[in-house]
Order: sequence, then structure tokens, then C-alpha cells
Amino acid sequence: MEVMEALRTRRSIRQFENRPVPDEMVREILEAAMMAPSAINAQPWQFVVVTDRAALDAVADVHAYVKMALQAPLGILVCGDLSKERYPGYWVQDCSAAMENLLLAAHGLGLGAVWTGIHPMEERVAAYRALFNLPAHVIPLGFAPIGWPAKVPESESRFNPDRVHYNTY
Amino acid sequence: MEVMEALRTRRSIRQFENRPVPDEMVREILEAAMMAPSAINAQPWQFVVVTDRAALDAVADVHAYVKMALQAPLGILVCGDLSKERYPGYWVQDCSAAMENLLLAAHGLGLGAVWTGIHPMEERVAAYRALFNLPAHVIPLGFAPIGWPAKVPESESRFNPDRVHYNTY
Repeated sequence: MEVMEALRTRRSIRQFENRPVPDEMVREILEAAMMAPSAINAQPWQFVVVTDRAALDAVADVHAYVKMALQAPLGILVCGDLSKERYPGYWVQDCSAAMENLLLAAHGLGLGAVWTGIHPMEERVAAYRALFNLPAHVIPLGFAPIGWPAKVPESESRFNPDRVHYNTY
Repeated sequence: MEVMEALRTRRSIRQFENRPVPDEMVREILEAAMMAPSAINAQPWQFVVVTDRAALDAVADVHAYVKMALQAPLGILVCGDLSKERYPGYWVQDCSAAMENLLLAAHGLGLGAVWTGIHPMEERVAAYRALFNLPAHVIPLGFAPIGWPAKVPESESRFNPDRVHYNTY
């Protein structure tokens, strides 16, 4: 899939078929995530690949917006690693770029995914920390259920000229 | 360019040829940025497209890591708009996804770009706020100088198996 088309047509996928994602695709998705830019190239991220059915079902209990984990064969937890930051305060941006690459790679492979938010909601951070045994310096940013799309929403442009300013606001 | 290749080969470009970026490409880049996912699809972003030579030169004075603005024919300032947030606290992630889409679109079009960080460094936020007349509810996240690459760094994989955990950390 051409990159401009991928950017235009990526959507949040919340319904999945009941079949697994091949390991080779998981590797390609993780590689794309790790190619994201980061402040001073610190790469302050960690990833937890979740395929265990009980763990995915447990994630679905954290909050209402991650219920689609019950259907997904795979989820990837994207975390910031504060011990790897070289420019304090930028880990959220670095890990968000990694998450966006992950979503685009999944779309490019014919899969679907959805970014569900964790940080900065403290109760969600605590729940993921407990479920996945995260040390104190590793902060869960977001969780992406991933799978073969059972339903693909229509894509329509979100271009909004009101949000574009020229040379001054 | 195929999306997986674009994800693998996008690099920060800091040297640019002395020729302008066509308006149609600026529009495509902005459209890609606005297709980013955002919490509850709030799209809490604003963009300032900078082509004015004096403004680009002024940006280069903000801090040492944005000196390449002196050479660039174009820069785009990505801002969060707190008045548009529907899920407080997620604007940094939403706008980072938009910035990453912007960088990938530029790469896909044969251009080069580099994400230079602003928020959360308060002195940088203040400098951009003054330069571009940003209201209090609009926070500059990052500035991307964009142009035709004069020098393209080699791409090598950043895949690091130490950052991947399976089902538990």
C-alpha cells in the first residue's frame, strides 16, 4: 500500500476476525514502531506483546474503551522507559510517534488496530502496571488491540482549513 | 513509496536544497497530519505554515537544534488547542501522532523534514508563542523544517529485541 494512501485510509479498527496474527507481522510492526524519531534518538520505549487470551481478557476489564481486546488475538502495550530518556519530558511524544508508526504498519499489512489511551490517567496506569508487572520507571502510554479487521469504517478526509494558519496565528 | 518502506526509511533531514515546496504538497502533508487518530476524535490541533524567510530565520534563533530552519523553504508548527480537547491530558499524544504523519507524508512525497521539540520546555514555548502570536489556549508542540533533502542519511534498522517483552514485563 502506498504511504499517502495508508495515511489517508488508516482508521481505528475495533472488530476483529477470530484468527491469529503471524509472528512475522508482529516483528514488522515492532520494527516500524522502533523506527520512530525520538528526542536525541534516545528511543525511550518498551513494548509488551500480548497474545495470552487470559491477559487480553483482563485488559478488557480495565476500562470501557478497551473492550475490543476481548475479540483481538493480539495487543501491544507501548510504554515509556524513563531510565532511557536523554531529554527529560519528551518520552510521551517519542512513544506516541512509535504508536502511530505501529498503527500505520498494521494497516499497511492489512491488519487493523486501535490506540486506546492509558497515561496520564493514573487509575489506568496502575491497572496496566499490575497486569504486566511493569517496574516503576516504565510507564504504559497506550494499548493497541490488533487483528484482522471484521469491519472497516469508511475513510473520509479530516482536512479542516480552519486549523491552518499562514506565517502567523 | 510503499508504506512499510516509508516507515523503515524515514530519517530526520537537516540539510535542504534551495527550492520551494509546492503548495499542493503542503496541502497533502497537512491532510495526512489531520488524519491522525486522537482521543475521542477531538482533533485538538492547529498548524502554522511558515514560508516567510524572516520568520524561518527568527525560528533558527530559538535554540541550537533548530538552526536548519535557516536553510529550509518551509516549516510547519504543530500546536495543541486546549479548547478542542474532549479528554483532558491527551493533546500531546494526539498532536505527536499528527506530527509523525506529517513527517511520513513529507518522506513519501520525496521531501525531508525533522521534528524539533518545543513543549514541555517553557522557554521554547514562550519563544514560539511570541513569534507566531499564539493565544494562551494554543500550545506549540513541535516545529518541523521541511524541504528537498540535500543529504539523506543511511537508514538502518533500530529493531532492538531487548525492548520486546511477551505477555509480561
